[in-house]
Amino acid sequence: MNLEDRELTICTEDYSLLTDLYELTMIACYVGDGIEEKPASFELFVRHLPKGFGYLIAMGLTQALDYLKKLSFSQSQIEALRNTKIFDRAPEKFWVVLESGRFTGDVWAVPEGTAIFANEPILRVEAPLWQAQLVETYLLNTINYQTLIATKAARMRDAAGEKAKLLEFGSRRAFSPQGAIWAARAAIAGGMNATSNVLAALKLGHVPSGTMAHSLVMAFTALSGSEDEAFAAFERYFSDPVLLIDTYDTVAAARRIAEKIRLGEMNITGVRIDSGDLAELSRQVRSLLPDITIFASGDLDEWEITRLKQAGAAIDGYGIGTKLVTGSPVNGVYKLVEIDGIPTIKESSGKKTYPDRKQIFRRKTNSKILSDRLGLATEIPSNDEQPLLQLVMKEGKQVLDPESLENIQKRTAATVAILPKETRRLDKPTSIKVEISKPLEKLRQSLTKQI
Amino acid sequence: MNLEDRELTICTEDYSLLTDLYELTMIACYVGDGIEEKPASFELFVRHLPKGFGYLIAMGLTQALDYLKKLSFSQSQIEALRNTKIFDRAPEKFWVVLESGRFTGDVWAVPEGTAIFANEPILRVEAPLWQAQLVETYLLNTINYQTLIATKAARMRDAAGEKAKLLEFGSRRAFSPQGAIWAARAAIAGGMNATSNVLAALKLGHVPSGTMAHSLVMAFTALSGSEDEAFAAFERYFSDPVLLIDTYDTVAAARRIAEKIRLGEMNITGVRIDSGDLAELSRQVRSLLPDITIFASGDLDEWEITRLKQAGAAIDGYGIGTKLVTGSPVNGVYKLVEIDGIPTIKESSGKKTYPDRKQIFRRKTNSKILSDRLGLATEIPSNDEQPLLQLVMKEGKQVLDPESLENIQKRTAATVAILPKETRRLDKPTSIKVEISKPLEKLRQSLTKQI
Repeated sequence: MNLEDRELTICTEDYSLLTDLYELTMIACYVGDGIEEKPASFELFVRHLPKGFGYLIAMGLTQALDYLKKLSFSQSQIEALRNTKIFDRAPEKFWVVLESGRFTGDVWAVPEGTAIFANEPILRVEAPLWQAQLVETYLLNTINYQTLIATKAARMRDAAGEKAKLLEFGSRRAFSPQGAIWAARAAIAGGMNATSNVLAALKLGHVPSGTMAHSLVMAFTALSGSEDEAFAAFERYFSDPVLLIDTYDTVAAARRIAEKIRLGEMNITGVRIDSGDLAELSRQVRSLLPDITIFASGDLDEWEITRLKQAGAAIDGYGIGTKLVTGSPVNGVYKLVEIDGIPTIKESSGKKTYPDRKQIFRRKTNSKILSDRLGLATEIPSNDEQPLLQLVMKEGKQVLDPESLENIQKRTAATVAILPKETRRLDKPTSIKVEISKPLEKLRQSLTKQI
Repeated sequence: MNLEDRELTICTEDYSLLTDLYELTMIACYVGDGIEEKPASFELFVRHLPKGFGYLIAMGLTQALDYLKKLSFSQSQIEALRNTKIFDRAPEKFWVVLESGRFTGDVWAVPEGTAIFANEPILRVEAPLWQAQLVETYLLNTINYQTLIATKAARMRDAAGEKAKLLEFGSRRAFSPQGAIWAARAAIAGGMNATSNVLAALKLGHVPSGTMAHSLVMAFTALSGSEDEAFAAFERYFSDPVLLIDTYDTVAAARRIAEKIRLGEMNITGVRIDSGDLAELSRQVRSLLPDITIFASGDLDEWEITRLKQAGAAIDGYGIGTKLVTGSPVNGVYKLVEIDGIPTIKESSGKKTYPDRKQIFRRKTNSKILSDRLGLATEIPSNDEQPLLQLVMKEGKQVLDPESLENIQKRTAATVAILPKETRRLDKPTSIKVEISKPLEKLRQSLTKQI
């Protein structure tokens, strides 16, 4: 890490400092009072689903584990922390802990691509107190964002239907380059077919997808006097060309293309329409170009896809950007639930938590989720209950091999398919009611009384 | 770059592939048709301000220029692109162009921290067509996001007043780690005092800021039976402690702290309240602890700050996270405005553009912006007009030294201070009406007729 050049592009080796200051000041307190190695459990969950959402698709675990595996502090990072003077009264052992520290804890998590609901832990960290505390900021950052994107992608897939092509086009609107990469991953894991982001696609082992921009059409039109020159050039160099036809007059462009195809002068895969009345234009284009794929784009989301379908649009694929990769967040929190074997609870107004290490017990058939029960991790599931949280990291070592994106995408599709209709619908969905087990409720009440 | 390990953490050397596929396919067309070196100008602007915003604070130029300076393709990146097979019909020269390519163009931009409005270019790239095309995705990603954050931070500063402490606490909710870093930068540049993100603060040459979390209080309470042990530990190791007092009973905690201070047993800088009726609680805490700084946090934004002030809250500082770093985006676009000396225009429904290289001519006094005129870059400003777009990069070399964050923050404050009241207000602000110069309007009309 070079802190000197003030370059703001960050890489893996920087990530141990990607933390809120208070994680470090709290660690200094823990070390000072000799409790830093006490076994602690923190759980990551949302108190409420985002407004208008009936479920969440858990996502981001892979990157969370990547981070935990690599966590360590370099000498230059330690030096930079010392130079802030913030820790001048901290015990010297604080620095020893940071210098020698690695993540040595256990992680329990629901598999990526699983539908979860409010108050259900997506992940639990069981580790020495200082380690479990340190990783809060990064774990929340990773899982909050990818869970948001995967959930939106799943909703878009549900709205568009299985056959529609859904392309992730959000890189220019994503909140930072790393945000664009994670959005591409979570979008595909959530059910989309491909991303336009070249780097993301290559890193994911996918082929990037895309069409052309207005600038190509405008450049060729300016230089040659004709939009058709742009189309011809694109067809010359690409075997599956998708032409953007709305730069000047969508229907006129489609008509000229149809004529060229009729004359055997042109061979294209599809067209994209990015503006105007997409339902009406797509129908007109379909009547002119019955055999080619019609893509639509321009501020689309699950609502707009539904509206277009209801309006009888002739659209085969959707390019989705802004409304997938930005917007209101998933507000996951990461709360201490147990320390040194003692269950803990938070009593803040409107922010009460459930104590102790927990498990989600799900009952389902092949076609439907029947119920979710939030209980203590030590409870025995009944015969028809499946515990969702699995041990994914043991003493700092990943237990299972990383999953393929295709597997996660399949799990997402399967989990959405068995959600109740009222949980899947876009308009005022109702979440599955999570039952609280008797032992958990009893523990919570006993702790509430104590305080 | 190692594409093999599928690690999704990206670094500077990856960034040339951080692009939508279509930038590369279009470049292949340009090269194939021999127009890749034609001088082209693209401008980055918003068609509309985000809903409810009266202005934008331009931000992100520093990182945009960092990217342009370093742009290049490695052999492994070229190889990865070839392996996609997408470019199998592209001319061989396409690869030569990428291999040898650097950014050699000019960049004009408004200084970071300047208020701008719809249709005003934040930045213009003048470069060989292929280069100007290639950089679209990254430039938009950078400037869209930082401009959003800086604008929100400026609005929050305006709402909170000059004396309030505004702390950026958004890292756990930011959309990726890199998003958290850029948010911290743009938040400070937009008017906030500090960030809790350690890495961001260190890279920016700042001292990170923060308090404590509920987990510390819960851990000490569980292990020692008393919330006060948590407060005492924190005070032991930090010289300016800010205690989080809402974990169980806010007022009771404040009362105990006040008693300890009275007895000379405790010495703290401030307290933080993160839940409940912040206006009422802060007043009660102020009556108990008249001399300490009271921080509030919990889903705050410029609206909530205003409401709290109107409700007579006794709050000195605000910790702001989620609503600063997430939400609806700034929808900047990057459009070809001229190629080979020929002005270009886009006619898509609802997405019309202004042709040619442009300049913003601003008239202002020390106390007020009088008018903005959008004209051709070649127009001569009148005596009282200031052209806002400056040459910041010449033939790939940065013209001016990078600015300090403090300078940019000062510019933001100065620019907001001279905005009309109706542009600054939160409730239905009206933007400054941007006048279109006669030559520009004439050119636009003449081009519209041609098409």
